[in-house]
Amino acid sequence: MKKKIPLYEEIANQLILSIDKGTLKPGEKVPSIRKFSHDMKVSINTIKEAYSLLETRRIIEAKPQSGYYICNKWPELPDDPTIRKQDLKPTQASTDEVFKMVMKDLYDPSYIPLGAIEPNHQLLPTQKLNRILAAETKKFEKESISYIPNPGLQQLRKEIAKRYIPIGLTFNPDDIFITCGCVEATIISLFTVCKHGDTVAIESPFFPCSFLLLEQLGLKIIEIPTHPNTGISIETLEYALENNKIDVCFLIPNYNNPMGSLMPEENKRRVVKLLLDNHVPIIEDDIFGELYHRNERPTILKCYDDSDSVIHCSSFSKTVAPGYRIGWAIPGKYKQKFDSIKRLFHNTPASPVQLTMAEYLASGGYDRFLRKIRQTYAINIAKMAEAVGEHFPRGTRVTRPEGGFFLWLVMPEKVDSVKLYERALEKGISIGPGIIYTRTNKFRNCIRINTAHWSPEIHNAVQQLGLLAHELLNS
Amino acid sequence: MKKKIPLYEEIANQLILSIDKGTLKPGEKVPSIRKFSHDMKVSINTIKEAYSLLETRRIIEAKPQSGYYICNKWPELPDDPTIRKQDLKPTQASTDEVFKMVMKDLYDPSYIPLGAIEPNHQLLPTQKLNRILAAETKKFEKESISYIPNPGLQQLRKEIAKRYIPIGLTFNPDDIFITCGCVEATIISLFTVCKHGDTVAIESPFFPCSFLLLEQLGLKIIEIPTHPNTGISIETLEYALENNKIDVCFLIPNYNNPMGSLMPEENKRRVVKLLLDNHVPIIEDDIFGELYHRNERPTILKCYDDSDSVIHCSSFSKTVAPGYRIGWAIPGKYKQKFDSIKRLFHNTPASPVQLTMAEYLASGGYDRFLRKIRQTYAINIAKMAEAVGEHFPRGTRVTRPEGGFFLWLVMPEKVDSVKLYERALEKGISIGPGIIYTRTNKFRNCIRINTAHWSPEIHNAVQQLGLLAHELLNS
Repeated sequence: MKKKIPLYEEIANQLILSIDKGTLKPGEKVPSIRKFSHDMKVSINTIKEAYSLLETRRIIEAKPQSGYYICNKWPELPDDPTIRKQDLKPTQASTDEVFKMVMKDLYDPSYIPLGAIEPNHQLLPTQKLNRILAAETKKFEKESISYIPNPGLQQLRKEIAKRYIPIGLTFNPDDIFITCGCVEATIISLFTVCKHGDTVAIESPFFPCSFLLLEQLGLKIIEIPTHPNTGISIETLEYALENNKIDVCFLIPNYNNPMGSLMPEENKRRVVKLLLDNHVPIIEDDIFGELYHRNERPTILKCYDDSDSVIHCSSFSKTVAPGYRIGWAIPGKYKQKFDSIKRLFHNTPASPVQLTMAEYLASGGYDRFLRKIRQTYAINIAKMAEAVGEHFPRGTRVTRPEGGFFLWLVMPEKVDSVKLYERALEKGISIGPGIIYTRTNKFRNCIRINTAHWSPEIHNAVQQLGLLAHELLNS
Repeated sequence: MKKKIPLYEEIANQLILSIDKGTLKPGEKVPSIRKFSHDMKVSINTIKEAYSLLETRRIIEAKPQSGYYICNKWPELPDDPTIRKQDLKPTQASTDEVFKMVMKDLYDPSYIPLGAIEPNHQLLPTQKLNRILAAETKKFEKESISYIPNPGLQQLRKEIAKRYIPIGLTFNPDDIFITCGCVEATIISLFTVCKHGDTVAIESPFFPCSFLLLEQLGLKIIEIPTHPNTGISIETLEYALENNKIDVCFLIPNYNNPMGSLMPEENKRRVVKLLLDNHVPIIEDDIFGELYHRNERPTILKCYDDSDSVIHCSSFSKTVAPGYRIGWAIPGKYKQKFDSIKRLFHNTPASPVQLTMAEYLASGGYDRFLRKIRQTYAINIAKMAEAVGEHFPRGTRVTRPEGGFFLWLVMPEKVDSVKLYERALEKGISIGPGIIYTRTNKFRNCIRINTAHWSPEIHNAVQQLGLLAHELLNS
């Protein structure tokens, strides 16, 4: 599946290139829409769309009665990962105490939640969902307190299937299993394709729960370096496959957590081919896939999966209703085994919320909500990047996520993110210190920041974090 | 904790004894309340209460303008289990296909649900819960779609703690973890106290999902014979502990599934002491504990647990709201480890149903509901036992559960329950064939029957089952 980039996006990309090369500098005025349309020989509307895209991404900003100016003060991109072949050994570290402590703090609502995993609650369609909940449980009285047996509410599975049509995939509702969040989908997927002692290849850095979970299930982990922009390093994955026994690969191709990287189409195709040629099943976590900031939903690995060997997992927890705990899995050719393991948990999420989500999706509410939220997250992430550029020590680099709401910071070597985390906590601010995203010794100078919220209070917290980072650099 | 039996219950027991001894025979009239009160030298009210208890249990029945008659036509009790020491070997059988097929059919709503695991939906307080759901989500707007972090809604944990006060246990709400049903509570408990390859001692027969679950988690199983009345055989458990490495014991002390057996107080005390003296942690499943048919809630193993080594698990799925998927665990001294594993699932059940259940419990609705349902189940189970006595081949024996809604039938040796299951399915009736409650070769002539429903249709189904059993006996 090769996609054509629309013209306005191409033009926007050219402008970004000019900025990257230094032809256009921060603060400088960009050509007026009319002039640029004339210069480029394209319609005024195309330029308008291109500028609107750049504005959403905070690369340019409109000043009243004056025009558009370059506002891009993003710090540099992090370097490509250092890849040392000798590091590619499976690890099975025990879960240490710092790790557990951090994990606990990330969920503590009393902190300014820069370390949190959750979306912005103020933006969620709370009243709308509650109205639907009351109406649906009244309408389906008996169903609302009865077990909904595996694989989950038919109507909900139908609505979920529809969401894959824009990327060219037509699933039968019976291909889809409703789970208690993406976590349960992942656990059952791992049980389906792994046995105790097997080795799982994951991206590095990767989200903290995955390590504890894989270790708890008795699985070994091999971490494959991930590029801030393009996701997992295919060359290293190739090398690892040749030199290690890898039994399954667990990936977040779209807006990886914590880096926010997005695998380009070509990489998705190559990774799927490489793994399946080596008979390695793939578990794909697409929890951020619908939170793209640009105009089109990115494809998923399953788009390139001719032999139906990718187990695709997702949920509504990062988009619209964290408290509903509704996730799903599309296990492809592993359907039968997945089904029989799923039955052990005999457990689809609470019936009232399945009924509610089915109706919310059918009514079109979810799409309207997503359109709004995507723009907000795009703006927030850009504002956060600018604030980091302003307040953090020189040399601090950040990723440029095109979806989701996480930003990954690489600070100067000397800044220890665990110390930063401890000092920030004293000031009532949580952050995700780099060490919890790996079992190797990397990322000690990195942090993950949740940008779902933006407010003067958050800006102030970033300023404080910057000061603390300066202190650590100069200590 | 030794409990005093109330006087009326003692009198009822004496009457049962007279029936068992043959002093009083089915169809015979029992003494009038006035006469019996005079004979026994106790108040008229006490006799009334004793007769009412016997009536609830369908041991006597009132005939208009005539008095009380003995209606006990229950078949014989099953024999005590045969205990052959050489059978006590850990098993790790693979999950065979018959087993999986049966498991699937048990959840199929198109069959007359004599094989089902679920309570009677017609009796559930559907409208009441739906009203509370609508009101609570309106009242707690934000909370209703937000994550409720581990260990779950405080107010709900407080209400659950209160439920243990009548059996003399005072828990702090912080001792309680809300889970997605009792299954998740059990899975996390197993992760907490076991590692891959460990051996779990369970009762035999035991509920089918447990085998698949334990096997999926890489655990070995050792089945300890269970008495139809008094639960696990302590002597065999003692022998097994001496001759095997047992790492954890998983028990249902109250109204065991499938037999319905209830461990007497003294046995509970002895089992807890025996296991803890041998440093074997206990997982206690009390999912039927509140469905007692008599007047008092039975104690739990945790009542005898001085060193806080019992992990107690339960849920609301078998009592009031199967579709809410709310369970809980009280992990005692394993709290910290349980907590850190629970966080991996970072998953309490859907927020709206936690809010609803907390309010339902606080309002007293649950207690009123339980009083009603207990009586219905007691009557249904007695009616079912009578119908079995009437329609099944001579020599068929049944258990006498004093709680829950399962009846366990032991048919003559020649009746193969798998064949019975297959033929019943053809007639649209599901049953639980004995082989799915064990990994040994026992119970082939046994079935479990769900008695939550009683209607002419159900009675007719029992009659048909009886005919099929006769056919199999004579074939």
